[in-house]
Amino acid sequence: MSDTALPLVISAPEPRTLELIFTPPKLARLKAHYRIVETTPDGVARLPPELLAEARYIVGQPPISPRTLEAMKTLRCVFNVESNLLDNMPYETLFARGIHVVTTGLVFAEPVAELGLAMALNLARGIVDADLAFRKGEELWGGDGNQTARLLSGADVGIIGFGDLGRALNRLLSGFRTHTKVFDPWLPPSILRENGVEPATLDEVLSSSDFVFVVASVTSENQGFLGADAFGRMRKGAAFILLSRAGVVDFPALMAAVRSGHILAASDVFPEEPLAGDHPVRALPGFLRSAHRAGALDIAFKRMGDMVLEDMDLIDRGLPPLRSKRAERETVSRMRSKPSDRN
Amino acid sequence: MSDTALPLVISAPEPRTLELIFTPPKLARLKAHYRIVETTPDGVARLPPELLAEARYIVGQPPISPRTLEAMKTLRCVFNVESNLLDNMPYETLFARGIHVVTTGLVFAEPVAELGLAMALNLARGIVDADLAFRKGEELWGGDGNQTARLLSGADVGIIGFGDLGRALNRLLSGFRTHTKVFDPWLPPSILRENGVEPATLDEVLSSSDFVFVVASVTSENQGFLGADAFGRMRKGAAFILLSRAGVVDFPALMAAVRSGHILAASDVFPEEPLAGDHPVRALPGFLRSAHRAGALDIAFKRMGDMVLEDMDLIDRGLPPLRSKRAERETVSRMRSKPSDRN
Amino acid sequence: MSDTALPLVISAPEPRTLELIFTPPKLARLKAHYRIVETTPDGVARLPPELLAEARYIVGQPPISPRTLEAMKTLRCVFNVESNLLDNMPYETLFARGIHVVTTGLVFAEPVAELGLAMALNLARGIVDADLAFRKGEELWGGDGNQTARLLSGADVGIIGFGDLGRALNRLLSGFRTHTKVFDPWLPPSILRENGVEPATLDEVLSSSDFVFVVASVTSENQGFLGADAFGRMRKGAAFILLSRAGVVDFPALMAAVRSGHILAASDVFPEEPLAGDHPVRALPGFLRSAHRAGALDIAFKRMGDMVLEDMDLIDRGLPPLRSKRAERETVSRMRSKPSDRN
Amino acid sequence: MSDTALPLVISAPEPRTLELIFTPPKLARLKAHYRIVETTPDGVARLPPELLAEARYIVGQPPISPRTLEAMKTLRCVFNVESNLLDNMPYETLFARGIHVVTTGLVFAEPVAELGLAMALNLARGIVDADLAFRKGEELWGGDGNQTARLLSGADVGIIGFGDLGRALNRLLSGFRTHTKVFDPWLPPSILRENGVEPATLDEVLSSSDFVFVVASVTSENQGFLGADAFGRMRKGAAFILLSRAGVVDFPALMAAVRSGHILAASDVFPEEPLAGDHPVRALPGFLRSAHRAGALDIAFKRMGDMVLEDMDLIDRGLPPLRSKRAERETVSRMRSKPSDRN
Repeated sequence: MSDTALPLVISAPEPRTLELIFTPPKLARLKAHYRIVETTPDGVARLPPELLAEARYIVGQPPISPRTLEAMKTLRCVFNVESNLLDNMPYETLFARGIHVVTTGLVFAEPVAELGLAMALNLARGIVDADLAFRKGEELWGGDGNQTARLLSGADVGIIGFGDLGRALNRLLSGFRTHTKVFDPWLPPSILRENGVEPATLDEVLSSSDFVFVVASVTSENQGFLGADAFGRMRKGAAFILLSRAGVVDFPALMAAVRSGHILAASDVFPEEPLAGDHPVRALPGFLRSAHRAGALDIAFKRMGDMVLEDMDLIDRGLPPLRSKRAERETVSRMRSKPSDRN
Repeated sequence: MSDTALPLVISAPEPRTLELIFTPPKLARLKAHYRIVETTPDGVARLPPELLAEARYIVGQPPISPRTLEAMKTLRCVFNVESNLLDNMPYETLFARGIHVVTTGLVFAEPVAELGLAMALNLARGIVDADLAFRKGEELWGGDGNQTARLLSGADVGIIGFGDLGRALNRLLSGFRTHTKVFDPWLPPSILRENGVEPATLDEVLSSSDFVFVVASVTSENQGFLGADAFGRMRKGAAFILLSRAGVVDFPALMAAVRSGHILAASDVFPEEPLAGDHPVRALPGFLRSAHRAGALDIAFKRMGDMVLEDMDLIDRGLPPLRSKRAERETVSRMRSKPSDRN
Repeated sequence: MSDTALPLVISAPEPRTLELIFTPPKLARLKAHYRIVETTPDGVARLPPELLAEARYIVGQPPISPRTLEAMKTLRCVFNVESNLLDNMPYETLFARGIHVVTTGLVFAEPVAELGLAMALNLARGIVDADLAFRKGEELWGGDGNQTARLLSGADVGIIGFGDLGRALNRLLSGFRTHTKVFDPWLPPSILRENGVEPATLDEVLSSSDFVFVVASVTSENQGFLGADAFGRMRKGAAFILLSRAGVVDFPALMAAVRSGHILAASDVFPEEPLAGDHPVRALPGFLRSAHRAGALDIAFKRMGDMVLEDMDLIDRGLPPLRSKRAERETVSRMRSKPSDRN
Repeated sequence: MSDTALPLVISAPEPRTLELIFTPPKLARLKAHYRIVETTPDGVARLPPELLAEARYIVGQPPISPRTLEAMKTLRCVFNVESNLLDNMPYETLFARGIHVVTTGLVFAEPVAELGLAMALNLARGIVDADLAFRKGEELWGGDGNQTARLLSGADVGIIGFGDLGRALNRLLSGFRTHTKVFDPWLPPSILRENGVEPATLDEVLSSSDFVFVVASVTSENQGFLGADAFGRMRKGAAFILLSRAGVVDFPALMAAVRSGHILAASDVFPEEPLAGDHPVRALPGFLRSAHRAGALDIAFKRMGDMVLEDMDLIDRGLPPLRSKRAERETVSRMRSKPSDRN
């Protein structure tokens, strides 16, 4: 096939790069099957009309004006590899024309779930403080060091949000024989039951769990929906693990609940990132901290490229994409997670 | 039933107590179904002959001389609730008479496996050091903090020893889709395959795993069998998690392998316990420490009592015990784990 | 809420009825939450414009002309409860307007998979003929009756098509520890791997399986794609189980392969239904017959109603339907399974 | 190693043969590692004393008198490859001397469980009668043919007996998401719970199950324990599947319960085998018959040899056998299943 006969891909994956999201062999494969036009997000609008007209795919989420979109006569799919959806393109027109907008955030589900499980086990067994005590020669041996230790196996677990991440977490929990309740108002209860978890109200999840995992995205409706009242309803000594976005919790209330000794907490996300050097959470006992490191593993980024290639292959054959997650007309405008500007 | 008609139990569970191993309702049930004679381990030999003659069960592992055993005409089972087998009773005679000697160490499998998994995830994600850096305001955000991070999901895992603990660990790993190799020369390979793991030589386990879990008991044959050569064969950057007994490893060689940066390690057991205040492992980077806390949870001790009651019920009905683990003629003399003198 | 404020549903579910697909309590719930206008498929076009303008949902797949569709200003979803998609409405316009077209065929996956598994085990163990021989006093006892018997446990299994039905079948197989290869060109290989099966070519599936299950829908491209050549590539003595549509196989070639003794077969579907009384498959040894009974269980029909209610609830709250399966622009025109005119 | 230095095995495996239970490579391996003395069961007692003195293993269950046993100074294990235990050797002396008596009946668990599951699905879907009707041109299409059809998925299942066979069956059921109750008075309830089933009384199992599987061995206590009363307590239309031994049921009462239309039944075992040509069960509608074919597959017999080799290897290394099942002092005399005289 002559090079000009290859389908055209516009690449503007900021803050990612093609090298970040494709392994060398996969990048070679991408280049063997497609003509790649690399540009910046802002550069897309300035591409020559004949290139726009030929573009089958966009990798990235550059701003697209209605006029630019109109020029893209053969566009079939926008691969948003950042994974949060910005309000910077005419989604309604895209959907009406049958152009898919997909995200590859699934790649983060497994690493985030692993960190979340690790955090839960850390809180249950006091691993960080036990190691610090050991360093100082102040460790307590055997049962003496286990006064507050508890098991995850057989525990009551609550999960708030049951998207890719909630499901990955539920899979990791499968060997623990937990009783797991899930609150997710965007899903029909029967789908939760099929996944072996019990549909529940938010209140049930909070008040009847030993471990509560928050994996819900921020939407226009749920900002700060977990506050002092929510933490107060939790079981004494329960563990609260925040994995998605700080925006869903009232962070000072969370810290107060931990400070009072009512609950333990762990979080990978914070109200501001990076966080002020003197933020009180840095010194809060009973709180395990992680600096938004849950998902950003190289192996996760590389899986993005795998997903993109698999879905391009399907679309090239006249099929719908199935590997990435499609943005939905109904919900695209509700998502409010701030995209990250780093990898 | 008049009290004297109840079967007689000699209780000498040191270092446990009946209150430690039975919940209040279960202790009430024990007392409702049996006459309990409480004594010290050394006191057993001094009990009146008519009591010895009536004893159906012993809870504990007191020293028993051949003569004392001869006096115990109706003994059916010794419930060793410490879980390591001392060489302080005539096992051959016990076995010849068909008296069971059982241990309840199964109760520790789940809590130890949970801590082991937690340790593996901690090493994989550097959780302790990340939290410490965060406390000091030196945390690295996002991918910057993940330079050495790796996933357990999909990893090559090696397990050395596949008794109750190895199986519990394998169960916890079931959601992680690992490729798991097991070395256990005491088990037929087909039983390993039925458990979904691949039978392997020690060398294969060491040289082809990202995570190596050591859960083998110390025997007369395997003391210190993991030394410098073993650690040298491990993959660069692999994690070594020691959960059973320090006696199976050459501890200085393990520390050297960590110090050199070749592997990471975590251990719940140490050559001496408690450990000298100036032991170099206390300050060793890349080594996660836990002070023999893996199993000693109250919930585990309480399950011992549950096991004892279930097996007494079976034996009372003329059936063999199935809940506890029976000591075996062939292996009882090989076991070399030092019993603990604390709970 | 006054009755006229309730959302409007047009019901034309032929060949189903509301009573078939809703349990009495669910039908009551439907009627409590919606105004139901019951009509025939052809009657939809004749409904008063003001009713059409208010209709939020259609239950059924009546013919819809562009003009009728234009009158339906607030239509949000067409619930096709027959499950095959007729080319009788302007799908492009529906998709462009963001109106969902969904099918409820998922309800048949579990009953069809159960029958398929039963058929496989029947072929493997010769159950029908053994029972007939027993009736006649000609049974063979023990191993004498097992000359051709084989196990499904541990066998090589091939599945052609991995939609709802293939997945249900794979789930039922989970206790059998089979090695399962799947051919499905509409799915990315990584999704197959995540389901624990191995992506394979059609030829690999045919030539390296002891049991081949065909659960692919008929499309414009795969009619009769399994013919003499395909059956010839199968292992001697392997079992071929046809569950989806007769249209995907060359039926005479299938019968010839069975007649020659090369393979065994079972089928729930036939080239004509009902089948001619003298069709040779009726008397063909090595062929197990079922008269399109695999899915049509009352419990399956009732689950349709459950699905419809769950998705209406999501859509009413401004969310996309997740329980039923959405028709896709790319594939709607490729589907060629003839809708059934009976339940 | 010179041939005379090889450990000695006495082989008297009737009704099996070494060729039946070992594949050719495994038989070669047996012969390479052991000296084999082949004899008949009755011939064992007549072997020269020096051979008896050297015998480490017996394969088979020949009659052994106390005197013969005394001559066998180095006997370590009797491998009973028939799998039922005859009262033809001094078990107490064997146990007192620490000689293992093991059975290899585990090999039948998987094939019997598969046939049992197949029978349950056959009864649930009327597969035999539907095929017969189809042969005659009298089949009913679609839902018309499913008036009494039911699903196993999600059903209430009862299992009576939870040895190897009950566990194999439970594993096969794992994809069906059943609610499974088990009655087994020889097992502690916690072991049942660990296997994901609910411990229950016999009455609960009978009265609250859609499918009842009987996999209990006959003992001196349970002969005929399932009679008219038991069948009367079953749910109307439930299925009764008998897989172990006819001795546990009152067979005429079972037939009466089926004849009355109260339950459906399937059985692989019969009061006499072979069965009289005019036995009424041959013509009983609602009863599915199999002539003791459930376990006797060649692949099962060959696995016996694998088990024997694995356990010989363990014992040779001074370890206890783990692959085969050990006879127990407490229960050996209670077992009453008549050994079969055929394979």
